[in-house]
Amino acid sequence: MNSSGNTKTADANLDTLLRIFTVPEDRNSTLTKIEEGLSKNLNEFLRNHIVTEERPLKEIEQDFLSSHIPEQPEFISDHTQHLLDKVVSQSVHTSSPGFIGHMTSALPYFLMPLSKLMTALNQNLVKIETSKVFTPLERQVLGMLHRLIYQEDDNFYLQRMHSAHHSLGAFCSGGTIANLTALWVARNNVLKAEGQFKGVEQEGLLRAMKHYGYDGLAILVSERGHYSLKKAADLLGIGQEGLISVPTDHNNKIRPDELKATLTRLKQNNIKPFAIIGVAGTTETGSVDPLDEIAEICRQEGCHFHVDAAWGGAALMSKQHQYLLKGIEKADSVTIDAHKQLYLPMGAGMVLFKDADATHVIEHHAQYILREGSKDLGCRTLEGSRSGMAFLLYACMHIISRAGYELLIDESIAKAKYFAELIRSQQDFELITQPELCILTYRYLPESVKDSIKQCPQEKRHAMNEILNELTKYIQKKQRESGKTFVSRTQLNPVELNGMDTIVFRVVLANPLTSKEILHEVLDEQRTIASQAISLINKLKALGS
Amino acid sequence: MNSSGNTKTADANLDTLLRIFTVPEDRNSTLTKIEEGLSKNLNEFLRNHIVTEERPLKEIEQDFLSSHIPEQPEFISDHTQHLLDKVVSQSVHTSSPGFIGHMTSALPYFLMPLSKLMTALNQNLVKIETSKVFTPLERQVLGMLHRLIYQEDDNFYLQRMHSAHHSLGAFCSGGTIANLTALWVARNNVLKAEGQFKGVEQEGLLRAMKHYGYDGLAILVSERGHYSLKKAADLLGIGQEGLISVPTDHNNKIRPDELKATLTRLKQNNIKPFAIIGVAGTTETGSVDPLDEIAEICRQEGCHFHVDAAWGGAALMSKQHQYLLKGIEKADSVTIDAHKQLYLPMGAGMVLFKDADATHVIEHHAQYILREGSKDLGCRTLEGSRSGMAFLLYACMHIISRAGYELLIDESIAKAKYFAELIRSQQDFELITQPELCILTYRYLPESVKDSIKQCPQEKRHAMNEILNELTKYIQKKQRESGKTFVSRTQLNPVELNGMDTIVFRVVLANPLTSKEILHEVLDEQRTIASQAISLINKLKALGS
Repeated sequence: MNSSGNTKTADANLDTLLRIFTVPEDRNSTLTKIEEGLSKNLNEFLRNHIVTEERPLKEIEQDFLSSHIPEQPEFISDHTQHLLDKVVSQSVHTSSPGFIGHMTSALPYFLMPLSKLMTALNQNLVKIETSKVFTPLERQVLGMLHRLIYQEDDNFYLQRMHSAHHSLGAFCSGGTIANLTALWVARNNVLKAEGQFKGVEQEGLLRAMKHYGYDGLAILVSERGHYSLKKAADLLGIGQEGLISVPTDHNNKIRPDELKATLTRLKQNNIKPFAIIGVAGTTETGSVDPLDEIAEICRQEGCHFHVDAAWGGAALMSKQHQYLLKGIEKADSVTIDAHKQLYLPMGAGMVLFKDADATHVIEHHAQYILREGSKDLGCRTLEGSRSGMAFLLYACMHIISRAGYELLIDESIAKAKYFAELIRSQQDFELITQPELCILTYRYLPESVKDSIKQCPQEKRHAMNEILNELTKYIQKKQRESGKTFVSRTQLNPVELNGMDTIVFRVVLANPLTSKEILHEVLDEQRTIASQAISLINKLKALGS
Repeated sequence: MNSSGNTKTADANLDTLLRIFTVPEDRNSTLTKIEEGLSKNLNEFLRNHIVTEERPLKEIEQDFLSSHIPEQPEFISDHTQHLLDKVVSQSVHTSSPGFIGHMTSALPYFLMPLSKLMTALNQNLVKIETSKVFTPLERQVLGMLHRLIYQEDDNFYLQRMHSAHHSLGAFCSGGTIANLTALWVARNNVLKAEGQFKGVEQEGLLRAMKHYGYDGLAILVSERGHYSLKKAADLLGIGQEGLISVPTDHNNKIRPDELKATLTRLKQNNIKPFAIIGVAGTTETGSVDPLDEIAEICRQEGCHFHVDAAWGGAALMSKQHQYLLKGIEKADSVTIDAHKQLYLPMGAGMVLFKDADATHVIEHHAQYILREGSKDLGCRTLEGSRSGMAFLLYACMHIISRAGYELLIDESIAKAKYFAELIRSQQDFELITQPELCILTYRYLPESVKDSIKQCPQEKRHAMNEILNELTKYIQKKQRESGKTFVSRTQLNPVELNGMDTIVFRVVLANPLTSKEILHEVLDEQRTIASQAISLINKLKALGS
């Protein structure tokens, strides 16, 4: 039965139409029941409505083939049922305690009604006229994050937090825009106005390079840097080749000696390294670069020091673990995502600037808004119209508080350490990266080959590694499809494994609802799936013997 | 009484903390009551909770001075009360029928529960693993918008809509990112790989310019183009001086003769004009550029033709008014904001590309996600992690339907025409720009000087205009502060007023709940405020006599 074919349609006349703006949903409507379901027991609602077993994407696409905008309106109740049947059912249960493959987590309950309130208020933070109190509120939240990182004194914040002439940072849709904003500011500051030259923001990159006499620009980051940095280098006209990848050590941290050598090489070629990025929580392994050492190199070289702490920045909330990010307070700019370890829903990134004057080089104005001297936030953000996500972070800061965030961070890291120990204690698993924050990687390694792979000659070892990669991919895919638990996968080149291309399971343990039992289940399920990959296991055995 | 000082605090222990993730709000809690209030009668809720009269920002800021993240958690109920008292009360009633100064409107009721559902699902659309059905859903919505603009046949969409190798467009946070994405694609296509040269995305702008032998790049747009284009020119390394402003005619539309002359001049200086932007609904006056003529010029010049239809694109839904955008189907790319005339909450922009291969020049991959050949949406978007706003647009497409959107658009334009006539029929107002879409501008012009200003010598006329500008600013500010109705203001240089800098009221009539009575009230209120500006009025009279 074709459900869309049978969907009842409403009348498209103005009175009916206006009702969707004026008449609330009936108490007994499908939509009201959904709301109640969400409020009463979110996890149960999602468990009941999201189909566990994965349907192939090709099949799902069959429900989304028409390229015509429907000509006739549907009744809300009918369409809501359709959304439950065709959309909610086939979505991903990202907040499930067993979904430990990506950076989404369960969210605090109170954020659901507050999100609804935020939608109802529908403020636009680009300017005060459409956001009023949301402007000082967002400035305060940015001030709190700034202080968490930079620890300036009360007077510093009193003078700058609500000043029309300063910005402590910017809210944006996520880490990509935050990183881009930071590098935009860095580029414009290194190619700033001077004498007759009006600055890169006015005259463009070609004339800026001529003025300053450089043959190229470079941004440096470890080989584990986030892919968004490539986009930033492309967008800013530097080119992806201008994003220089610096080798990492066996802990996936940038090597300061390699960083220095790269800088020397670049300068010999008259290429200006204008920004160095420290990663505070790599996406794949959660490793934190030696920020103090990078800071010192940046100081010596006169480079902008940016820290991509999209993932790890929240660890500053923990007195026990903030030492991991030591040196972040020397960064010129820092990216933190609130939709990661600050437990907000998707769409909340931030960039903070040490110097509240740093963003002057990206300032802009218009006649109808953002007039000179106004406190409109839009004067110094990459995005224009924006929603009031800062409202949700403001509420979390008060309801969870620093002490609450500390507990969450400490728990996550403790859980990751527990899981690492658990993996290490198995006969048939191999821990690949030790967790520093709450991310770790590992793989399934059949007991039968665990010893032989280390002893056999290099060529054979490579062949076995290839099969193990196939096995890891196979297990990850089957596990995902069965829908009980989920880990992600990535490719690393661990020093311990001679730098071979190694596919690994990647686990992120930020969801406070993930129990130790679930971690045991994840391994059990992987072991069971592996036992079904008979031909791969046999190939391995044959090679290993 | 300092409320934050007296706020009760909860315990920061793990069990208490976990409750916010597992235990729903009580049926009698403040938050549940807010939700019920929103659901029962949104307008009443907002009217009851938002304070009408404006408090000075300086005063509001006093409640947001601390830069410390609170050390101890607050009870949800206490903090909710605080949010009502200090935040909701001082927010802007953007959905009020009398708030006709900016592009926010009342939203359909059903979007509130659906927003809550979207938050609860918390999908991340960067990749299929965290969004599954949301990926084909978003692709379908983009397909629908693409078809609305480009009217390709079924086969075109069947082959491309769900293809891993094609993109019909991209969802993003708003028009700024949409415009930036379009110009990024345009820049990378004009400086694409060729022979030994690996393309601007790889080698950067400096080497690209050398390879192609250009002394500069230029983007052309009318002087009414949106300020986000300046940011894009800056970001992309072209420089704001590379965004060339082309004069407009008396209807605020770009002058094709001036456009051609500008192109000739640029080429004489070896500057490559690589993109021309047609504005389909200028922010200030709602005017639509002659898209057909620009398309022809772009064809002749081999320029990328981008249409910024962030505001006006929705008019394509109306059979009666789609002719206004004729020529948009020839654009290489089009920006449309769903959070404007498609009635979504803040944070929903889109860019559509005529050629589904156009985005190959901004494609990117990584090991852990966005692998080659995957259908992950993140391979070809500027943003990374993103929320599932397409879900809300999908629901609107079905519940409102094309026919419903048509009614909304037609009503808005009819209302704007009515208001224009109303203004024209007043003795003491002056219509400045006639509405083409539902935006118009006007000013208060005391009857006593209405004739004299036209007849007096130029110098005097300028002096009177200056005072009128003061008066317009005064009225707009007072009206905003009184909080009953709200119009915005901008500065134009109308041909009819000898190109003098003229401050005008700007009105946007997209809210379906704005009645004709309210339009009368807006004028009455402005007249009353004007009558209180005695010294300005007297100065005008003195000059006019």
